[in-house]
Amino acid sequence: MQRPAEQYTKEKLLIKKKKLDDVLKQRNIVVQAYEIYGGIAGLYDMGPLGCALKQNILQFWRKHFTTYENLFEVEGPILTPKCVLEASGHTAKFSDYMVKDMKNGCCYRADHILKTFYEKQMEDPKTSEQEKEHLEAQMKVIDNLSKEELGAAIKNNGIKAPDSGNDLSDPVPFNLMFATDIGPVGDLKAFLRPETAQGIFTMFKRNLEYNGGKVPFGVTQIGNVFRNEIAPRNGLLRVREFTLAEIEYFVLPDKKTHKNFADVENLNVQLYPRELQLADKEAELMTLKQAVADNVINSQLLAYFMGRTYKFLTELGIPGEHIRFRQHLKTEMAHYAKDCWDAEIRMSYGWVECVGHADRGDYDLSNHARCSKVDQSVYITFDEPKEVCEVTITFNKGALGKKYRKDSQKLFAYVEKLNETEKEAIMKEFEANGVWKITVENINFELKKEDMKITSGMKKVHGESIIPHVIEPSFGIGRVLTGVLEHCFWLREGDENRSVLSVPAAIAPVKLGIFPLLTKPEFTSKVSEIEGVCQRGFVSFKSNTTAVAIGKKYSQADEAGIPFAITVDHKTLSENTVTLRDRDTMKQVRVPEDKIVELVTALSQFHSILKFEDLLKTYPVEEVKEVKEN
Amino acid sequence: MQRPAEQYTKEKLLIKKKKLDDVLKQRNIVVQAYEIYGGIAGLYDMGPLGCALKQNILQFWRKHFTTYENLFEVEGPILTPKCVLEASGHTAKFSDYMVKDMKNGCCYRADHILKTFYEKQMEDPKTSEQEKEHLEAQMKVIDNLSKEELGAAIKNNGIKAPDSGNDLSDPVPFNLMFATDIGPVGDLKAFLRPETAQGIFTMFKRNLEYNGGKVPFGVTQIGNVFRNEIAPRNGLLRVREFTLAEIEYFVLPDKKTHKNFADVENLNVQLYPRELQLADKEAELMTLKQAVADNVINSQLLAYFMGRTYKFLTELGIPGEHIRFRQHLKTEMAHYAKDCWDAEIRMSYGWVECVGHADRGDYDLSNHARCSKVDQSVYITFDEPKEVCEVTITFNKGALGKKYRKDSQKLFAYVEKLNETEKEAIMKEFEANGVWKITVENINFELKKEDMKITSGMKKVHGESIIPHVIEPSFGIGRVLTGVLEHCFWLREGDENRSVLSVPAAIAPVKLGIFPLLTKPEFTSKVSEIEGVCQRGFVSFKSNTTAVAIGKKYSQADEAGIPFAITVDHKTLSENTVTLRDRDTMKQVRVPEDKIVELVTALSQFHSILKFEDLLKTYPVEEVKEVKEN
Repeated sequence: MQRPAEQYTKEKLLIKKKKLDDVLKQRNIVVQAYEIYGGIAGLYDMGPLGCALKQNILQFWRKHFTTYENLFEVEGPILTPKCVLEASGHTAKFSDYMVKDMKNGCCYRADHILKTFYEKQMEDPKTSEQEKEHLEAQMKVIDNLSKEELGAAIKNNGIKAPDSGNDLSDPVPFNLMFATDIGPVGDLKAFLRPETAQGIFTMFKRNLEYNGGKVPFGVTQIGNVFRNEIAPRNGLLRVREFTLAEIEYFVLPDKKTHKNFADVENLNVQLYPRELQLADKEAELMTLKQAVADNVINSQLLAYFMGRTYKFLTELGIPGEHIRFRQHLKTEMAHYAKDCWDAEIRMSYGWVECVGHADRGDYDLSNHARCSKVDQSVYITFDEPKEVCEVTITFNKGALGKKYRKDSQKLFAYVEKLNETEKEAIMKEFEANGVWKITVENINFELKKEDMKITSGMKKVHGESIIPHVIEPSFGIGRVLTGVLEHCFWLREGDENRSVLSVPAAIAPVKLGIFPLLTKPEFTSKVSEIEGVCQRGFVSFKSNTTAVAIGKKYSQADEAGIPFAITVDHKTLSENTVTLRDRDTMKQVRVPEDKIVELVTALSQFHSILKFEDLLKTYPVEEVKEVKEN
Repeated sequence: MQRPAEQYTKEKLLIKKKKLDDVLKQRNIVVQAYEIYGGIAGLYDMGPLGCALKQNILQFWRKHFTTYENLFEVEGPILTPKCVLEASGHTAKFSDYMVKDMKNGCCYRADHILKTFYEKQMEDPKTSEQEKEHLEAQMKVIDNLSKEELGAAIKNNGIKAPDSGNDLSDPVPFNLMFATDIGPVGDLKAFLRPETAQGIFTMFKRNLEYNGGKVPFGVTQIGNVFRNEIAPRNGLLRVREFTLAEIEYFVLPDKKTHKNFADVENLNVQLYPRELQLADKEAELMTLKQAVADNVINSQLLAYFMGRTYKFLTELGIPGEHIRFRQHLKTEMAHYAKDCWDAEIRMSYGWVECVGHADRGDYDLSNHARCSKVDQSVYITFDEPKEVCEVTITFNKGALGKKYRKDSQKLFAYVEKLNETEKEAIMKEFEANGVWKITVENINFELKKEDMKITSGMKKVHGESIIPHVIEPSFGIGRVLTGVLEHCFWLREGDENRSVLSVPAAIAPVKLGIFPLLTKPEFTSKVSEIEGVCQRGFVSFKSNTTAVAIGKKYSQADEAGIPFAITVDHKTLSENTVTLRDRDTMKQVRVPEDKIVELVTALSQFHSILKFEDLLKTYPVEEVKEVKEN
């Protein structure tokens, strides 16, 4: 029977989650890595089904973003020298607070320890309603606590190490980057990248040139990033190595628009701006057009990418009502961000941040320009040359040389870097007082009429150099995958052991199940023959020639997310036709053997025009009643 | 004009190489990473063209191997705990020999230092013919020298540090793995994986189960691996981070065959077995069928994968005559290998190893079984049960308990682990002497008739446990990419500045160039319109709406490997047709605008049925004469 319309509640998702977790492990979809050695927390293996599903999601991402938006995909190294991550601020700021068991040295995340304590208090029947209200308020602000506030909260509540009951240390920042050394001498310190974005920024000039020296353009990078989590948890949600797919879209600060905004402006999405969060209200439905008009989202360009993300997630099978965009509170926003909206997917864990959308301003390019001393700006030619006032400062170098000797160089260098506004201010001071006093690198200069001359005049300027801003959509692919698994997984009505993974055919890990009705040689040799046809037609398949009943084979295929299955039966041997079964509806049609590759390929395309329903009109329908079979 | 048939010589390749290197950098195809910070040796950025080319090669690899061979793609972490790499032998043996400048600490690879010295001697006009012969012989064996031999050769030749002239240290082994720590305490030592294979081996049991407990099956993994090279060199050939695509095919030791061997057996490939190498002869053409029959290649299965690799490389555009399979000498073979053949591609650097084909035997699974204490065998049911002799040893536990107390447990545990042959030997000794003496964990046991009884009898056995063998084809994707670039790159006859990158359309980084004949608004707005159609049809394109001449736009597209280009001209505006140009032949046809997506998509398929020549028959040919334009 077909998938029933579901009322998703957190409780219902939790029941399914238990079954899904079993399936993920038993079917080798996602399993803890290095299991035979006892496993390593925060590292995962993806077996054949999990890996194919992830790869297909990435291929769809490439089509939906890179190809469709005409972005440039690049690939840089995972190994990143320290200087790059100093410029980006990661060596200084990419940390979580950690507390240590004072006796055995076990480490815990300070915020996790506090949250668990509050949760236990909440569940305690002795806690009064008034106390509960107070606790709830405290839990909301955990993410925003400073090191000192975290430490005080732990101390004042008398919280001990959860495993031993020992005293805990004060919180200390723990940098989440994995460190290593490049080269044999060990003097080149490096880290495993914590995001792919920095690789895109350090390549910016090359890609600007590739784009003819013009913005806007967008660059994507897909790859693994690493975070040495203190306490990995929740399956693929908080791990030590994971795949990001990131877009850095470079744009002029005053041109944050998109020519195709009309394609997404009428999408009605759940928005959760910070005002609603702070007022303890729910997210509200709003069109992106309205959100931009009301300045809820700070630019059309940011809203455009939020719309494209929404389309991406819904096409992966996640219902729109389980997607919301939550704006970062001012206190939680990354140090570089101007505005930031997380696409969150409702899961058994609650609302989970899966895609970040940040306006990073010129933070990264400016910092790399400063640290690398390589200009990162774009030269913009004005439509018409502009007349601007230009102030010229000329020194009497001979006189200054006598007074200040070598130090006068410091003054010249300082003045060289001044902008027009600063020079104008000096001119005003100089004209008013007849003297200009300035301290440069601890040297006090006092300049009089005989030392320098300041003149001003109008000048034609043809353009200017601007460091572009960056809009960044950043996809946590493991989290998106978890969202897809939770929302595509369901249990057949009346039989909770028959689980189905209804991922869209285009991303299904394997497209076709091939089953013989009986295990007799004439049937299995026909299966081999069809396998060969599928191989040459590049249709991925999984056969099952064991002696289990056909119903069981179907339900195993359903659980593995295989959208279509054919059975080789008596008619196959006599008429060269097979039954083709649809995973979600369990309906079957009888199709000619030589149509298998063509039909399955067409049904499995992204944005496929052909649907299984169409086959019901074209080919004879097989009347079958699937019986419970486990 | 069409690409001329070329006589590839090393000299010709070198001339082209110079031009190709310029193109790679100027077109942002491959550039040293972190360039704005001065660059890091052995790390590379791939810009939009390089990245797309690589991704398309990987997608083709997935079709050609994973899908076509019905293999299981998996994905494990890059972070690998020390225990795994101890089991595999990497912590002990994955090293190069390094010598240090005794004064400034600079490090060099010992073999490179020696090779460079010999090469200089060879070029020295004062070196006699006889000395040259001697030097040549020495150069051939450099790879096989032990630490002591390397040290002696450097010392005896009086070789100094190349940059300073200082004395050099004795060679010391330098482990090539990058080290890091997992978790906050820093007690979990880990490395960045040096190959993807170990991840496949540690997941073996899960994938065996996924395959219904049966071998053969093959598992693939694509991902980055890391080697802390002492001296990175030669572009993408010797780098510190690179992508491997590996297959581990698990098979019973006595069943190294493949059902589809007939598909490749008649391929006539250049084989270079170790006998020919040692006899200083050239590689010889041989069919794979012959090579297996003559036992040149040690199994049909290994030969099958060599054939599939050959097909893969030729379909990427590398001519068969520039591919050879070189067998490893016994001295150079990895510690685990039973037989090993490298697919080498002839490049400007000489013959370059690009794909390894190794029979790794049961080395890896046996070691992981030993170290993890988790069984890695496959249970094989015999067709018919076998009658085997079984020896049973029964102890008089009471008597032994009195004599040896707790120590008797050690004896029981020892006997428990004996195999049938060992038990038979004990039985013979016991029957002959009436006593069995054995020392277990420093305890001397002396067992007499009253202490134990040994009987033997026949027993039916239904199967046995076997650790499978592994055949491993391992692709260095950066090296394959370099081979593709060198062989697909050529210069138009009569104009050495017009270079063309004739990569097959299926792997071309961008499929279509879109150019307006004139930069007038009616032309450029038509270009925008066609761009939109291509985006929605997922056809990747690069437009050029600058004022440069159309010929220049074509030659820029040729250099970027773009296989097709359309021009929007006057007829486009009046008739909705465009010219479609073929990169390699420069021929053009006029096609309806609404056919662009369909045609370019069809022409760019893997194993495409439609060729550009076919269009010359279906659509009006545009008579054009391209003029030199730079």
